[in-house]
Amino acid sequence: MKKTPFVTLEQLKDIEKTYPTPYHIYDEKGIRENARRLNEAFAWNKGFKEYFAVKATPNPYIMQILKEEGCGSDCSSYTELLLAESVGNTGRDIMFSSNCTPPEDFELALKLGAIINLDDITHIDFLEKITGEGNLPDTICCRYNPGGYFALGTDIMDNPGDAKYGMTHEQIIEAYKILMRKGVKHFGIHSFLASNTVSNAYYPELARQLFALAVELKEKTGASIEFINLSGGIGIPYNPHQTPNDIAVIGEGVRRQYNEILVPAGIEAAIFTELGRYMLAPYGHLVTKAVHRKETYKHYIGVDACACNLMRPAMYGAYHHITVMGKDEDGEKMVYDVTGSLCENNDKFAIDRELPVIDIGDFLVIHDTGAHGFSMGYNYNGKLRSAELLLQEDGSVKLIRRAETPADYFATFDFEGASIKVKDSDE
Amino acid sequence: MKKTPFVTLEQLKDIEKTYPTPYHIYDEKGIRENARRLNEAFAWNKGFKEYFAVKATPNPYIMQILKEEGCGSDCSSYTELLLAESVGNTGRDIMFSSNCTPPEDFELALKLGAIINLDDITHIDFLEKITGEGNLPDTICCRYNPGGYFALGTDIMDNPGDAKYGMTHEQIIEAYKILMRKGVKHFGIHSFLASNTVSNAYYPELARQLFALAVELKEKTGASIEFINLSGGIGIPYNPHQTPNDIAVIGEGVRRQYNEILVPAGIEAAIFTELGRYMLAPYGHLVTKAVHRKETYKHYIGVDACACNLMRPAMYGAYHHITVMGKDEDGEKMVYDVTGSLCENNDKFAIDRELPVIDIGDFLVIHDTGAHGFSMGYNYNGKLRSAELLLQEDGSVKLIRRAETPADYFATFDFEGASIKVKDSDE
Repeated sequence: MKKTPFVTLEQLKDIEKTYPTPYHIYDEKGIRENARRLNEAFAWNKGFKEYFAVKATPNPYIMQILKEEGCGSDCSSYTELLLAESVGNTGRDIMFSSNCTPPEDFELALKLGAIINLDDITHIDFLEKITGEGNLPDTICCRYNPGGYFALGTDIMDNPGDAKYGMTHEQIIEAYKILMRKGVKHFGIHSFLASNTVSNAYYPELARQLFALAVELKEKTGASIEFINLSGGIGIPYNPHQTPNDIAVIGEGVRRQYNEILVPAGIEAAIFTELGRYMLAPYGHLVTKAVHRKETYKHYIGVDACACNLMRPAMYGAYHHITVMGKDEDGEKMVYDVTGSLCENNDKFAIDRELPVIDIGDFLVIHDTGAHGFSMGYNYNGKLRSAELLLQEDGSVKLIRRAETPADYFATFDFEGASIKVKDSDE
Repeated sequence: MKKTPFVTLEQLKDIEKTYPTPYHIYDEKGIRENARRLNEAFAWNKGFKEYFAVKATPNPYIMQILKEEGCGSDCSSYTELLLAESVGNTGRDIMFSSNCTPPEDFELALKLGAIINLDDITHIDFLEKITGEGNLPDTICCRYNPGGYFALGTDIMDNPGDAKYGMTHEQIIEAYKILMRKGVKHFGIHSFLASNTVSNAYYPELARQLFALAVELKEKTGASIEFINLSGGIGIPYNPHQTPNDIAVIGEGVRRQYNEILVPAGIEAAIFTELGRYMLAPYGHLVTKAVHRKETYKHYIGVDACACNLMRPAMYGAYHHITVMGKDEDGEKMVYDVTGSLCENNDKFAIDRELPVIDIGDFLVIHDTGAHGFSMGYNYNGKLRSAELLLQEDGSVKLIRRAETPADYFATFDFEGASIKVKDSDE
């Protein structure tokens, strides 16, 4: 599927008058329409709720848009809980899905009334030490890990048995029994089997397994399973050659399993999801400009963004499509490495990529950076993280996070007893 | 070689009263002694200077210690230049070795009088646009990339021809001719062929190639080659089974090449190095505590540090040795995955590692984190970066960077027109 930027060259030139490259920009319209498609696909399920995976794009302005579309927040840490709170997501609008959880994170989750998803059977005691004995929340979710290998068709394969997350089959049954004894009344099940699946079959297959588990848990423990959290894992086609997921087909596939397994067992569970990539990735661009052209053993284009703005290519060798703005995609081409300025040779947005001939000053749009883009940014080589902008539905552009300054980068050298002051050159 | 922490369990317990885990701690004594060994190994060379690679450990207190040992700063970015300035490293105490360089970084390097290392032949024009025509600095260094494959024995292999750095042989000769015409008087050569070499043969072999190039450049362009920068690449044995480099042998190996190649050609060049890992990695520990124990399909120990504190295992699958403090290394053992709390399955400090049986609350020292440890930290999952501490020569512990707070993490949401306020729960 051809990847077309949601911004035009004219818009980028206009934005540049206020905000220099590089920056992340998000498409409000795209985000809203996609969220509506998701809600529509699961409209058959009473209580369906998407909890946006904050880690994908931890920006409250984005979270606010999603909240307006009915989404809650899937939080995994203390600061993510604070972000949820900042947009008014508290109580059952938060799923707190964490692992190896620090006590202060559980404390804040409890304070906010979040639905807590326990990653491990030992977390029951860990949590109860915080709440005090007999004071566990009314509602608890447990994370399930079926172990072994998970394979689906030819493309999707993952290794839950090697993943650190979740409880075994035996443990989750035991956990529900313990939790019932401790007075917990309402239960959920959560599981994650594969990441970034581009297949309409993943959620239905996961649902089938979790629905069967729900029936078994009900039979063996008497627990009231009120929601089933299919977690994340619905991916996007980073490469234009991939066929995107059809969320309507996915919703229908889950419905079929629901009707076959849960309805006969008399379980009326709400379906929850914790999508991040699917909700945001396609609706974000990293916008950068060509700054240098270098001809050595390869053709290089140096841009003003680097792996600090988008780590996926460096960390995973991930493909991100690139559009050279204003250039004819059917015109003259060259094979480039598109590089950032880090002293790391993996700081390349594209390797041996055929692209239209690039001139210095050209805008490059790096696609599908709306999730795990800014959020995985680091400050290696002392690089500063960029601004985030929102292309609003009316076509106007709004700042939703300012760019870092040297003062931000040096903030943690400001402490009592500091003997060296680090400051910008002009200060 | 057995890896022994430079801190004792008693010291860690004492530190904990003031600074909670996780934190990075550095060993002043080890840093100084190692720097002295390096200077001693190259004492035969008049003008030898190590420019510490700031990217490895961008902390001014560390840079100050190294400055006291005669080291300058190898900077690759704007903020690294500011860090150098903060400890009084300016002028020829800075090598500015950057690639795909933003104009403002060159501007600051010029302002500070740093020695500029040009990564590409096109950077001559790029730099001259900033200085004004005919105003290039008196001294310029050029980075050389011989291309092809670089192999040394059985262990060291790298692919300079696929690296984005440096000029080809033809280009570097041409660059010197152009720079001579433009009035540059003093020249250096810089090259980097392989990363983290644990071999006494790497620097001598690199020196052989660069010295031969210096002779050729002198002959073909008449340029006065006043320094040869062997850059980084001298590694450390992360794994106890490796045999560490012997810097005295390395220095002697470089001297032999110097006497064989440069002296007969009448070139009296200073040797520069840009070591980061070698200067700092072994003299830093990431200190963390066991918080959770989990038994599912494997044995897991969850600690309070995560990949945000040390990314090398997640990004490169790198080995970092772990000492469980206070436990007998010859006592009872188990095979663990040691995990952090990120919602990323690669957030593991060790996989299938045999370690003494670990109890909740045990201190774990993760070794060799003094370089590319804190500096590669990110905030994924909203995790905050830790403090950095210095174990001083007198045994006292000094804070040299405070831990991030939620306010730091949310700082870039504070801008004119911001409509959502994100704050800590108690504010």
